[in-house]
Amino acid sequence: MNAPADPQFASRIRASFGRQKAMALIGASLAVVEPGHVEVALPYREDLTQQKGFIHGGIIGMIADTACGYAAFSLMPADASLVTVEYKINILAPARGALVARGEVIRPGRTLTVTRGEVYAEDGKHVASMQQTLMMLAGTPDTPE
Amino acid sequence: MNAPADPQFASRIRASFGRQKAMALIGASLAVVEPGHVEVALPYREDLTQQKGFIHGGIIGMIADTACGYAAFSLMPADASLVTVEYKINILAPARGALVARGEVIRPGRTLTVTRGEVYAEDGKHVASMQQTLMMLAGTPDTPE
Amino acid sequence: MNAPADPQFASRIRASFGRQKAMALIGASLAVVEPGHVEVALPYREDLTQQKGFIHGGIIGMIADTACGYAAFSLMPADASLVTVEYKINILAPARGALVARGEVIRPGRTLTVTRGEVYAEDGKHVASMQQTLMMLAGTPDTPE
Amino acid sequence: MNAPADPQFASRIRASFGRQKAMALIGASLAVVEPGHVEVALPYREDLTQQKGFIHGGIIGMIADTACGYAAFSLMPADASLVTVEYKINILAPARGALVARGEVIRPGRTLTVTRGEVYAEDGKHVASMQQTLMMLAGTPDTPE
Repeated sequence: MNAPADPQFASRIRASFGRQKAMALIGASLAVVEPGHVEVALPYREDLTQQKGFIHGGIIGMIADTACGYAAFSLMPADASLVTVEYKINILAPARGALVARGEVIRPGRTLTVTRGEVYAEDGKHVASMQQTLMMLAGTPDTPE
Repeated sequence: MNAPADPQFASRIRASFGRQKAMALIGASLAVVEPGHVEVALPYREDLTQQKGFIHGGIIGMIADTACGYAAFSLMPADASLVTVEYKINILAPARGALVARGEVIRPGRTLTVTRGEVYAEDGKHVASMQQTLMMLAGTPDTPE
Repeated sequence: MNAPADPQFASRIRASFGRQKAMALIGASLAVVEPGHVEVALPYREDLTQQKGFIHGGIIGMIADTACGYAAFSLMPADASLVTVEYKINILAPARGALVARGEVIRPGRTLTVTRGEVYAEDGKHVASMQQTLMMLAGTPDTPE
Repeated sequence: MNAPADPQFASRIRASFGRQKAMALIGASLAVVEPGHVEVALPYREDLTQQKGFIHGGIIGMIADTACGYAAFSLMPADASLVTVEYKINILAPARGALVARGEVIRPGRTLTVTRGEVYAEDGKHVASMQQTLMMLAGTPDTPE
């Protein structure tokens, strides 16, 4: 159902992720890159925590936002880039270990794409759920101007 | 209207923020601490950016989540802590400079508190808007177990 | 996984739905009532439309909110009621026919429950996606005071 | 700041609202129509209630969605129409009387507009807060095809 418009989508996503200095800062990496489905892995680090010692909710949002965004990006033409319009995230449980964020496209579109993300802990606990909207910028490179 | 339940709320918030290693990681600091209103400042750093060179949307979410959370925390009793239930954020404009996130309580409650956050760039540009729900945990310390 | 706390949950939901005068106003009915999963059906009527002749987005929100709320309610003790804390809905496609809203519990909780809803048209088109948070009120009847 | 692109915006909005059969069904009316600011009034009626006798949360969402949508519409060119992309609403307090929903544009845009809505009861109680995203359809009439 979700056919990529660009057969080179995976290498394009890996290169784009590699330019995300914020992902390097928190130690996140790309774990799965498939059409309409991308996963981002985050090993546990103490410097990612909030005041009670759990992974900061904003960090959980960061990896879910990124996984969902690349899930959308995987279906786009080679000359397009995209921006996050908005997202909503429920934090379902506190997390104190490695995480994986899974992004899925639920409605691809010419202008807007809607995705969902789930964040799980390594013990299988469901940590967060996201619903996100992205906008495609046709003919706009996914690189710094 | 928003009277703090604990007169020592500001020092309590500063100590809590100081325990947030994730805030230290990204270089954020507390700029304003008032009852029902907290601001978090974030200087620009290249390692906070996404693939196009703008501040990562998840980083914007982190500082807005934190500002809103402490705005709620400012109105709570000294022996309570809180958790973020969920938030929704619209990214209104790309950002490539220092940011400030302003959190405000719009509906304080015994169990749930609803807040709003605005993120602005140093040139005054409106970068993001958040609406957030938090839950108070009565009699639960705001420190690692 | 989602075991109902009250074996009479289905009759309790049917009675509660029957008290919802707003559901009668729009012609909605309960189609499926299972533990953690409830569906609400809405036949097409011209008086449910907006200015362009499509079903009003707020009506779509109403049936999704209701399906998700009863999905949560299905897992609650017999003496509890609940309130919608918040919901977020993406309208994925315009609708001009009968609809069904499917609500599912994704994280049941003692205080807060998180659900998701999908709205489909009779031709299978995916019309809307919701993510919702509810709060249980223990020992509070689900009837007018 | 919010200058209307079409000086006839108010009559255009009144005509569009008049075509919304769903607004007639629930008895809602336009109370204020200004550039970037629209209010929708809803008298209390028993057939708008949920199982506990309060106004249905979905009805509250309907009037907030509509007020926000027309706030966005007030700034658009005469030949454009718009669709609701998504909204998020927090129900802050139960309501058992007449309501007014106030929609405001917080970020007008060529493609996407972001709005906020507040719903108040006649006694001044703050009932709900919404944050909404809309998409402009240029050169598309705001009437049935």
